[in-house]
Amino acid sequence: MKFQLYFIASILFAFAPQKKTRIIFFGDSITQQGTEPGGYIIRIDSMCRSENKSGQYEFFGTGISGNKVYDLYLRLEDDVLSKDPNVVVIYIGVNDVWHKSLLQTGTDKDKFEKFYQAIIDKLKARNIKVIVCTPAVIGEKTDFTNPQDGDIDEYSNIIRRLAGKNSLQLVDLRKSFLEYNLKHNPENKDRGILTTDRVHLNPAGNQLVAEEIWNMVKANQ
Amino acid sequence: MKFQLYFIASILFAFAPQKKTRIIFFGDSITQQGTEPGGYIIRIDSMCRSENKSGQYEFFGTGISGNKVYDLYLRLEDDVLSKDPNVVVIYIGVNDVWHKSLLQTGTDKDKFEKFYQAIIDKLKARNIKVIVCTPAVIGEKTDFTNPQDGDIDEYSNIIRRLAGKNSLQLVDLRKSFLEYNLKHNPENKDRGILTTDRVHLNPAGNQLVAEEIWNMVKANQ
Amino acid sequence: MKFQLYFIASILFAFAPQKKTRIIFFGDSITQQGTEPGGYIIRIDSMCRSENKSGQYEFFGTGISGNKVYDLYLRLEDDVLSKDPNVVVIYIGVNDVWHKSLLQTGTDKDKFEKFYQAIIDKLKARNIKVIVCTPAVIGEKTDFTNPQDGDIDEYSNIIRRLAGKNSLQLVDLRKSFLEYNLKHNPENKDRGILTTDRVHLNPAGNQLVAEEIWNMVKANQ
Amino acid sequence: MKFQLYFIASILFAFAPQKKTRIIFFGDSITQQGTEPGGYIIRIDSMCRSENKSGQYEFFGTGISGNKVYDLYLRLEDDVLSKDPNVVVIYIGVNDVWHKSLLQTGTDKDKFEKFYQAIIDKLKARNIKVIVCTPAVIGEKTDFTNPQDGDIDEYSNIIRRLAGKNSLQLVDLRKSFLEYNLKHNPENKDRGILTTDRVHLNPAGNQLVAEEIWNMVKANQ
Repeated sequence: MKFQLYFIASILFAFAPQKKTRIIFFGDSITQQGTEPGGYIIRIDSMCRSENKSGQYEFFGTGISGNKVYDLYLRLEDDVLSKDPNVVVIYIGVNDVWHKSLLQTGTDKDKFEKFYQAIIDKLKARNIKVIVCTPAVIGEKTDFTNPQDGDIDEYSNIIRRLAGKNSLQLVDLRKSFLEYNLKHNPENKDRGILTTDRVHLNPAGNQLVAEEIWNMVKANQ
Repeated sequence: MKFQLYFIASILFAFAPQKKTRIIFFGDSITQQGTEPGGYIIRIDSMCRSENKSGQYEFFGTGISGNKVYDLYLRLEDDVLSKDPNVVVIYIGVNDVWHKSLLQTGTDKDKFEKFYQAIIDKLKARNIKVIVCTPAVIGEKTDFTNPQDGDIDEYSNIIRRLAGKNSLQLVDLRKSFLEYNLKHNPENKDRGILTTDRVHLNPAGNQLVAEEIWNMVKANQ
Repeated sequence: MKFQLYFIASILFAFAPQKKTRIIFFGDSITQQGTEPGGYIIRIDSMCRSENKSGQYEFFGTGISGNKVYDLYLRLEDDVLSKDPNVVVIYIGVNDVWHKSLLQTGTDKDKFEKFYQAIIDKLKARNIKVIVCTPAVIGEKTDFTNPQDGDIDEYSNIIRRLAGKNSLQLVDLRKSFLEYNLKHNPENKDRGILTTDRVHLNPAGNQLVAEEIWNMVKANQ
Repeated sequence: MKFQLYFIASILFAFAPQKKTRIIFFGDSITQQGTEPGGYIIRIDSMCRSENKSGQYEFFGTGISGNKVYDLYLRLEDDVLSKDPNVVVIYIGVNDVWHKSLLQTGTDKDKFEKFYQAIIDKLKARNIKVIVCTPAVIGEKTDFTNPQDGDIDEYSNIIRRLAGKNSLQLVDLRKSFLEYNLKHNPENKDRGILTTDRVHLNPAGNQLVAEEIWNMVKANQ
């Protein structure tokens, strides 16, 4: 009897479509561009396929240009929770710093942390795994003379602390981008190594982000 | 039998405390100070009592210094909805404009409208009456030379449009303050008529806000 | 004998080239574009010719994009005094206000006045006539909701006071532009009436500036 | 006869007061406070006396709160050149960076360099020795998370380049302050080590600045 039961279960398992891990990338224009050809999400999907893992994962991006942490909070229900993801990769923070000088509409440090934690809380309440990324760069110079370097370091520290406090996986893009530039940007240029315009990713930047996140996603399982 | 039942009901009704209209004032430091002695909420409560209407209304203030529209959205559930109000008076917008130049963390116009509408939606979904106020002043000069005059006029227009679109009562403090200053500020001073510091209310300012809102609250019933 | 002397003088006067009044326009990108085809300086020159006054005036423009009042002060010697003008038309102030929000590098009010006065002092010390212009617009909306309206009004007031205090001719472009827009901008648009982009002059804007200044120049003599 | 003349000259020389090297400190509020008790200029004067060199040097401070590089340029004639100094120590740059976020009236990078060079040119034209200082700190945290770190590093680089290009002595306070904080600020505090408020010098800060400049002044001779 026991054998028979096992046999049936086996068959069911074999034919039932395996439930894929649904991963949503949640962010700003960098993530919006991530779903375009050559974008980091497309690259993750390609790496997944080439490793014959496309049966295990499915990827969705929801990035909106100009978004800051509180914009993610506002659209969390509609754009993320309603789609029932297993994993959410949060990649936010550039505009929270950059828009201070660009439009005078950046995000205060304490509120950045408060909204970020509120998003984490809502995701964890649904048992959704959360991966957080530090904002990579606003300017690629390696001698700490990009105007927002101090501020983006501070906001990256907030995300690192949130990752520790909430036991989340951290993709430290800020750190990876600096290390990459220290190797590949001997002329101390402010763009053109991993970004097109100091902020948005060029092909090398999309590839670096894709690799960093994809490795973390696989480590997640 | 019927008589008896009615009789009991009558007694119950007579002795049960009348359900008061619960009004919550929702805002920033101006509303925070509104619950202090001489504050506009205290003054509304006093006017209510002196008109023998304290059996009909109860007033609560939840103002937090530095709050902008998205901060209200973040704490809407905890600080407002959980307290089951019948009416919510929203008084926000000064920091959304002012913090642009003060801290580079103001609120973009389109997002100001989006978050404001999201708050209105959540309140209306619970059948809570909504009264909205325009931000009064950042500087009391009457010749349109306060640095933020153009911007605060624009954000006031957004609130006026939202009031129209959502059929809400509007307390147009921006308009009332200008009219008051045109009469009482012949020297074109930037503070001291209705504010202590160009933004926060002095006794005359608290009195004006109290009267404007109290009249609207009574008109509401 | 007296008759004869007079006669000689007459002949000399008739044949000697008349010394033209040399007018330099001193400003920012708006003045830089003023010397391009269709620009306001070119238009003034055309009006001058069509009124058969080209023997009386010659016009030079020295406008540099991004200039603020202290930039004019820095290059006053090289670009203006060294050219020995009879009249200098100062048209500055837009960037002093606008660059506050655009680049965080605007000019403090008190310093705007101090540098402006220092320029006037140096010009007057050489007996150069000074004509000052108020900055026209940063946004053409007529309902006082252009974000910089309050601030540009304040800086215009500084220039008006400087004109009064130093007995200078004032071309009040701020006022002229508002009056023109009240007539010709019924839709309350922020550009396209006198400017291409809220700041820089379109043909109608160049024409209005040309007329206002040209009339003042002629009144100057 | 010749002998006698020489003899008189000798006596005159022996008794005539030695011409002191006149040093003017030229800057902002930090230099303004430098002439107050405990200030860095007072400390330099004390060190000079205790080394029995008060016959060789005299010190004057002209610092004005809120000054940026162009303010120094504006008052160069009145406050410096008219006093015929032998050496001018320029200590400017903090407000050029800081006032970007504080008041939206910082100084563009290219203009910072241009005005600084113009000051140097005027001083060199009078054969005045110029010593330049980098702006020390806006926040003393050592992990590059002070919001203006990137920008103040950039402006310090401009001053370093100007020193090289114009063969000027450089007092690299930015570097000295960081090195001091790396040793004495293990808690990564943003103030209280060398400053009272992230910017203005406490006694230890005044002492450090005094030592750095005094050593450079002596090396100058």
